Amino acid sequence: MINKTMEALGKAPSKIREIFEYGKKRKAEIGEDKVFDFSIGNPNVPAPAAVNETFKELIDNNNDVYLHGYTSAAGDNDTRQAIVDDLNRRFGTAFKASNLYMTCGAAASLKISITALVTEGDEFITFTPFFPEYRVFVETAGAKLVTAATDPDTFQIDFDTLDAAVTERTKALIVNSPNNPSGVVFGEESVKKLAAYLEKKEEEYGHPIYLITDEPYRELVYDADVVVPYMTKYYRNAIVCYSYSKSLSLPGERIGYILVPDEVEGAGDIYAAICGAGRALGYVCAPSLAQHVIEKCAGMVSDLSVYKTNRDLLYKSLTDYGFTCVYPDGAFYLFMKALEDDASAFCEKAKDFELLLVPADSFGTPGYVRIAYCVTTEQIQGSLPAFKKLAEAYGK
Amino acid sequence: MINKTMEALGKAPSKIREIFEYGKKRKAEIGEDKVFDFSIGNPNVPAPAAVNETFKELIDNNNDVYLHGYTSAAGDNDTRQAIVDDLNRRFGTAFKASNLYMTCGAAASLKISITALVTEGDEFITFTPFFPEYRVFVETAGAKLVTAATDPDTFQIDFDTLDAAVTERTKALIVNSPNNPSGVVFGEESVKKLAAYLEKKEEEYGHPIYLITDEPYRELVYDADVVVPYMTKYYRNAIVCYSYSKSLSLPGERIGYILVPDEVEGAGDIYAAICGAGRALGYVCAPSLAQHVIEKCAGMVSDLSVYKTNRDLLYKSLTDYGFTCVYPDGAFYLFMKALEDDASAFCEKAKDFELLLVPADSFGTPGYVRIAYCVTTEQIQGSLPAFKKLAEAYGK
Repeated sequence: MINKTMEALGKAPSKIREIFEYGKKRKAEIGEDKVFDFSIGNPNVPAPAAVNETFKELIDNNNDVYLHGYTSAAGDNDTRQAIVDDLNRRFGTAFKASNLYMTCGAAASLKISITALVTEGDEFITFTPFFPEYRVFVETAGAKLVTAATDPDTFQIDFDTLDAAVTERTKALIVNSPNNPSGVVFGEESVKKLAAYLEKKEEEYGHPIYLITDEPYRELVYDADVVVPYMTKYYRNAIVCYSYSKSLSLPGERIGYILVPDEVEGAGDIYAAICGAGRALGYVCAPSLAQHVIEKCAGMVSDLSVYKTNRDLLYKSLTDYGFTCVYPDGAFYLFMKALEDDASAFCEKAKDFELLLVPADSFGTPGYVRIAYCVTTEQIQGSLPAFKKLAEAYGK
Repeated sequence: MINKTMEALGKAPSKIREIFEYGKKRKAEIGEDKVFDFSIGNPNVPAPAAVNETFKELIDNNNDVYLHGYTSAAGDNDTRQAIVDDLNRRFGTAFKASNLYMTCGAAASLKISITALVTEGDEFITFTPFFPEYRVFVETAGAKLVTAATDPDTFQIDFDTLDAAVTERTKALIVNSPNNPSGVVFGEESVKKLAAYLEKKEEEYGHPIYLITDEPYRELVYDADVVVPYMTKYYRNAIVCYSYSKSLSLPGERIGYILVPDEVEGAGDIYAAICGAGRALGYVCAPSLAQHVIEKCAGMVSDLSVYKTNRDLLYKSLTDYGFTCVYPDGAFYLFMKALEDDASAFCEKAKDFELLLVPADSFGTPGYVRIAYCVTTEQIQGSLPAFKKLAEAYGK
């Protein structure tokens, strides 16, 4: 009688949420500092101080229609101009405000982009491990999600599995670098090879294969030699989905954008379809006050040094204890091999030591767990004896 | 190659937006005060002063994770509790926080509700005139929008046309009172009769017919004797879609909710399907800071006295000039009969007098125009000679 797909989606407990809720309960039982909750990717660093100052200054100096009124559906023009100015300055691009469509965050950017592109029988490819909501967004848009396994040791692109996944039905490849949950970054060589491969397949099939690049973690890289290539400079048919959730620590404000460069095949039609999808999905405009804040703060980044400290401490300690971890160049996740085949059983065992980890089965990589280290360094330090005991419990 | 439905939606110029853009251009040519733009429903009254104060106080007194972090997908619990406390106080209801799902405004509320309910072959009914996006939301969810004409003189429910529209396939009736664009309110007698009718049809077909009540204009009524019945008290299967866009003048902030009372048939499953639809459509949570503001300001309403002043002045003047208008009990629209059959031609003629009106064809009521009076009273006063000349041009 009602939509069973939606009902099932609503009832399927997100594994991450389930663990997070357990953590809250457990903390109430034994104390906040006794439970080491690494389940959820909620940034714990504050926004740059200028962000909150800007909220207040805007309120003090503008009328309510400007502050809280509808913007155009594509977004406030001054905001879009400020964003492309920032991008052009950082990446040497030449985007215009009209290339941008403001959204309620990266999830909205992805859903709107997929909906704009999808036609009957389409397949969307993504590399494993992948953010599980990709499957939800693609399948509820009526398309098929095809996964391509990455190299099992490095989680870098495996062009053989990719080639096995690409077919004439491939509408787009969704890429997420730095990656949630692995923290892996695809470097320039990799991106060049990917672009060349996709161009070859476009030629072969006679139609574009779009690259949807999901970039909320773009700014979260911690070593000077790690560069996240700006995809549109390497591949003509790249569409960027961005969010300020992580760079400005504003995940709850739901503010991001879709960027459609002029050179994308059918850019004008795609941009129109994005506007249409935004309408159809019930998005009227991105939140107005947050848009105005972004106009002033587009070029800023939160102080991310705690993430680097956490990553270094956690990676070194866990590998010392005998765990196998992928060295994460970016994002705020450590991807660790479970010490038994069943990652869920391993996570249950970890609970005995009050460690809350997420099994990565729903990310398409059984046998791994995700550790979200966007917590305090004190929590990391406090958790280390527990990790050591966990390793020992498996004979390490 | 891309989604043609979405492309067409994106390219179909919203008539309202088109006129609004023309108005901006025309103002630049002949001066701001010479053009009388009644095209767009962007509230011109400020938010209550306490709203902006609350934004600033929250920022001054809370950490960034609270302010800007993810809330649960259904919304911050304190916010939901404050909202139901306010509803229960005003309407004598007994809602719990768990009956509410926070959304990015009324459009999101509607789209999510429709998506949660829809199954193959469903029909959704709405009365004419109706907000044109209903058609977009329903059709892109894969269902059929069926319209039922209201009484041509009063725009109140015509139970004969409704009865002709209801079939076994009817999943829900979407009601909007106070109505955009007519300003008409369905009073208690009417709602009682509607509830009795729907209950009879539910019995006949053996399945629920949901009433989706779209209520962004609930608080915008101007006469002491006009009461907007709270639908859930009259009809068991009513689901409320609400937005603070108009009551608090925050349309750009995208903040509203869906209310599913416990007594709705299948309430638990529907609530789950709403959560699932929110996920599938890319909504992660409603904007967090705005949610916290609503917690403090749920019971407030902007000073709406200018709307009453405008309505009274405009209604009296236009009827004096010989126009036929529906007396609007609520919202901020005056619905006026065009002085020729073709409302678009009439609106073109009105442009000669710098009056920007919206033909109501896309609202399902050809021959009428919508006048959005959420403008300054000075603008209304300034426009009256132009309206007079327009009437005279038609021999009135």
